Amino acid sequence: MSDLKARILGEVAAELSSIEAALKENLNPWAELAGEVAGHLLFSGGKRLRPLLMILAARACGSDRQDLARYSVLFEYLHAATLIHDDLVDEAVMRRGKPAAHGVYGAPEAVLTGDFILARCLTLTAETRNFAIIDEICGITEAMSQGEIQQLYNKGRMDLTEAEYLDVIERKTAVLLKGACVTGAHLAGQPDEVVDALGRYGWHIGMAFQMADDLLDYTADLASLGKEPGADLREGKLTLPVIYALSKASNGEKERMEAIMADPDFTVEAFSELVSLLTELDGIGYTERCAHDHVGLAKDALAGLPHSREKELLLLVGDYSLGRKS
Amino acid sequence: MSDLKARILGEVAAELSSIEAALKENLNPWAELAGEVAGHLLFSGGKRLRPLLMILAARACGSDRQDLARYSVLFEYLHAATLIHDDLVDEAVMRRGKPAAHGVYGAPEAVLTGDFILARCLTLTAETRNFAIIDEICGITEAMSQGEIQQLYNKGRMDLTEAEYLDVIERKTAVLLKGACVTGAHLAGQPDEVVDALGRYGWHIGMAFQMADDLLDYTADLASLGKEPGADLREGKLTLPVIYALSKASNGEKERMEAIMADPDFTVEAFSELVSLLTELDGIGYTERCAHDHVGLAKDALAGLPHSREKELLLLVGDYSLGRKS
Repeated sequence: MSDLKARILGEVAAELSSIEAALKENLNPWAELAGEVAGHLLFSGGKRLRPLLMILAARACGSDRQDLARYSVLFEYLHAATLIHDDLVDEAVMRRGKPAAHGVYGAPEAVLTGDFILARCLTLTAETRNFAIIDEICGITEAMSQGEIQQLYNKGRMDLTEAEYLDVIERKTAVLLKGACVTGAHLAGQPDEVVDALGRYGWHIGMAFQMADDLLDYTADLASLGKEPGADLREGKLTLPVIYALSKASNGEKERMEAIMADPDFTVEAFSELVSLLTELDGIGYTERCAHDHVGLAKDALAGLPHSREKELLLLVGDYSLGRKS
Repeated sequence: MSDLKARILGEVAAELSSIEAALKENLNPWAELAGEVAGHLLFSGGKRLRPLLMILAARACGSDRQDLARYSVLFEYLHAATLIHDDLVDEAVMRRGKPAAHGVYGAPEAVLTGDFILARCLTLTAETRNFAIIDEICGITEAMSQGEIQQLYNKGRMDLTEAEYLDVIERKTAVLLKGACVTGAHLAGQPDEVVDALGRYGWHIGMAFQMADDLLDYTADLASLGKEPGADLREGKLTLPVIYALSKASNGEKERMEAIMADPDFTVEAFSELVSLLTELDGIGYTERCAHDHVGLAKDALAGLPHSREKELLLLVGDYSLGRKS
């Protein structure tokens, strides 16, 4: 674990423990199987980044509400619901170092449990009795489902543009992190300009996180990633490192890259060769710089907030998103 | 088509045409593929029973609101979202006389489009700006997902009880028809006792409809049903005609029924033999009587409403639910 990650985790131990408790308390399954399948993913050690951001955003806006942990878990439920469906859609084998839910319990169980966890998210959302928050969550569920559908449609397309890639990662990732921060500000009763500032922070952090995630698919190993590296490629999913490298490649390099990517059973050697090309053609470097720029803009968005422990933590989360190994 | 169905359809032509228009207007896909897959199911001639019930309920309560069709389609979206996921879960081949969506577009597309249509339902729900309606829809999504999970868990269980069966059909069907009627009453600004009365009507109609549906699986043919008869049995899904017949069967009859049901590739002859047993052992008759009783209770629930065209239509829908052929 990086020093930065350890430092953040130490600082937010109390928040994380309140989130874990709230995740268990609010699941409330009537059907035993629903609780079991949901628990498989929910209690296998995720980062809890989204609920944490919501709580930190509310506290950084000065809220001393005692019910923040309860509402914060709606973001973990929403995240888990989409992960379960996406792993099924992508035929992913591993998630968080464990076999994916559809592999353990079956595809039907995974579909319906995703629906159930989403339903729990919606009930918690309604309980906030805040229309701005309800609208935010509705918008997120629409955006995420369509982002995933578009990503599915884009699979195998070698001509995917950077703009199309950005459209998809905004919908599938950034809107949810933005929503968590916006909701924190709403729960703290903040005016529009503060809500917008927190929203900008969350959106840029989301873009940076997804770019860092997409980089890890080329730079991490199985043990630290908790799933197989090269998975995006195997699914025909082009991400920024590849899109940028293809745009800078000579005809020969382009042909070689496309030949490697056309074979879903590529060898370790072919994958290494591709990673070398991504590095040489600056696909890795460009993606790192884009993520870095987003983190800068995320931090800038918080400039108007008064100094607080939670504001410092939000700034550290930005740094962490760039340096993480998993 | 039965005379009763033709009569009802003639009477509600204006409502049905406003529902069709609203279904198209409110789908709003950003991702083209989402609109295409959603349209495959949504515009293939469903009965539109749920939106129709919402509109009739509101009008029977005296509402002259002009936005009823718009909100009514949230119930068709919710219904369609669950149908798409359920057909996938059940590996159903046909739906409404057409190949099921997952067969045409693929399982991933079906999962994500179900999520998208549900998201559209949620946005429309939030737009009512009525917390009673929002709570109702949240409760329905929870109940439906868990009802389907429980049904999945119950598959192949020969010892399923009537109480367990009723639990599942309440969750997977009755709560949605109840929700449509309750929402109509809320949109008409009615007090609790009227909302409850419409809710009782919808709940009993829902129970009767599901029982009639389960009967059709043994008594209808492919052409009128739009999907294969015997499908429940092939999936190991025990419904009331079978549960009741098993409870009345001799040891020999029970063994014979279980032997037929144990083979998912049963022949036409074996299926006919089973239907004969269900008839002789009163499984068919008992289910018809239960459905009939629910319709009676549904009608009773409307006793306090003043006379109106829409109240008459709600009463007719009750009669229709018993006599329908598809």
